[in-house]
Amino acid sequence: MTRKPQICEVAPRDGFQSISNPLPTEEKIGIIRALAAAGCARIEIGSFVSPKAIPQMADMAEIAAAVRELPARLCALVPNVRGAENALGAGITEVCYVLSISERHNQNNVRQSFAQSLAGLQDVVSVLPEDAILRVDLATAFDSPFDGTVPLADVLSAVAKVGQIAPRAEIALCDTTGRANPFMVTTRFAAAMSLPETAGNGWAFHGHDTFGQGVANAVAAWQSGVDAFDTAAAGLGGCPFAPGATGNTATEDLVFAFNEGGFETGIDIKVLLDVADRIAALPGAVVASHLRHVPRRRAA
Amino acid sequence: MTRKPQICEVAPRDGFQSISNPLPTEEKIGIIRALAAAGCARIEIGSFVSPKAIPQMADMAEIAAAVRELPARLCALVPNVRGAENALGAGITEVCYVLSISERHNQNNVRQSFAQSLAGLQDVVSVLPEDAILRVDLATAFDSPFDGTVPLADVLSAVAKVGQIAPRAEIALCDTTGRANPFMVTTRFAAAMSLPETAGNGWAFHGHDTFGQGVANAVAAWQSGVDAFDTAAAGLGGCPFAPGATGNTATEDLVFAFNEGGFETGIDIKVLLDVADRIAALPGAVVASHLRHVPRRRAA
Repeated sequence: MTRKPQICEVAPRDGFQSISNPLPTEEKIGIIRALAAAGCARIEIGSFVSPKAIPQMADMAEIAAAVRELPARLCALVPNVRGAENALGAGITEVCYVLSISERHNQNNVRQSFAQSLAGLQDVVSVLPEDAILRVDLATAFDSPFDGTVPLADVLSAVAKVGQIAPRAEIALCDTTGRANPFMVTTRFAAAMSLPETAGNGWAFHGHDTFGQGVANAVAAWQSGVDAFDTAAAGLGGCPFAPGATGNTATEDLVFAFNEGGFETGIDIKVLLDVADRIAALPGAVVASHLRHVPRRRAA
Repeated sequence: MTRKPQICEVAPRDGFQSISNPLPTEEKIGIIRALAAAGCARIEIGSFVSPKAIPQMADMAEIAAAVRELPARLCALVPNVRGAENALGAGITEVCYVLSISERHNQNNVRQSFAQSLAGLQDVVSVLPEDAILRVDLATAFDSPFDGTVPLADVLSAVAKVGQIAPRAEIALCDTTGRANPFMVTTRFAAAMSLPETAGNGWAFHGHDTFGQGVANAVAAWQSGVDAFDTAAAGLGGCPFAPGATGNTATEDLVFAFNEGGFETGIDIKVLLDVADRIAALPGAVVASHLRHVPRRRAA
């Protein structure tokens, strides 16, 4: 059976968050609808976080109400039980929880220790209904902006703990800085996937193209058996706490690799590129894409 | 035994040719020396072609005389017997001959049919001394700017003919437009390498990053058993007869993947990035690199 790659579009979360001035709610909703129309089957629509911490996400309930009937798997980032309850209350039954393996990055990102974040994961798991879907993002699974290469032992220890707390979750190894290389991606996924604690988990790769390795790293993950990939249309985004990190790998660049390589993502590249152009035109957007800059007739 | 990737630096040929106003000979020589000092063990120093056809290469004899004692394998492109004789006369004993599998691209590139180019290859082979090294570049081995995807059967037919004429040559499958994808690279190299006619040939991959697949395609070739990779420092270059094609994959981006992934190329990235900056500053240079834009302390 031919495997089918799942593209998880994160521009509305990782991407919109990177634009300091909050976008109009209607524009966000319009872009999420356009992404679904392009064939994006999984979309991270935003974060149910305190508007004080991230003002760009203050309109999540309104967005969720407007898009929740779309024919796509919709996911929202939640930092804690309150966020999870708000997501569920808004009809979003797939949530993403983030922990960073680097202590220092975790402190910068969510102002708590990794152990505290693990306890928070346990709390979120305990309030999720049986039919909810959980994604766990393990940030700095390769490299940390503060500490350089993160030891494989630290990654495996973190993955094992997550597997014990959330044995059915989809675990993403996140290349937060874009500094992973494809050989390292292969090694780390193989090791993580062979842990007995992760026997029931699914797998995802979240990558950036900052060092030019974005597509290569995702393809290495795919070859390791990973089926889900976080990307952002137009390459919008970046981590505000990871200096030098540019946007997520552009959705169009990775979709090109899969679609042209015979592994259909279900995404229509021409329609997607129109959405990517719309995203790139947002005031304050910082984008990075290869495919947007080739003649459109050659892109698909 | 750990395999060692060979980076073939082509900025002085594919790259300098893309700059319309000829560069000062001393500047070219300086850059070739600096590339060797960065650890580039194979360098394509230019083309022994008619100065009428490509005025940028009129000073090849002078360049060859100045660099031929460098501790690196030096190669020069030759379009015909006269070019080969001029290269040999200048002390360059490794030559590269180009044929394009797409008839229309071959006509645009060298104004003759593929069959005529094959006859030209036979002529070049016949004048090369026993100890000379031959590289054969098969352009448009994946995609043609005029015809789209080039049929695999055409590629295999071309490869088999080259293998018969030049049974010990290093054959490069060239992604002239950058439109190959890693899955296609895997498939085509596997098929080409299993032809009985190529049993004695070595293999190289020449790629561009136009569609964001540059590093991914090279890594796919490496995984297929290919050991040599054409790249250009700073991503300088492009094919003047392939509309929309930007430069070769940046040497620094691919070296990062290999060095960081545990397959040492012998190239010092920090030194290379200084050369890449020098190349990017050349008047008329069009470049594309990821690594040049990350904080230098993070690049290696």
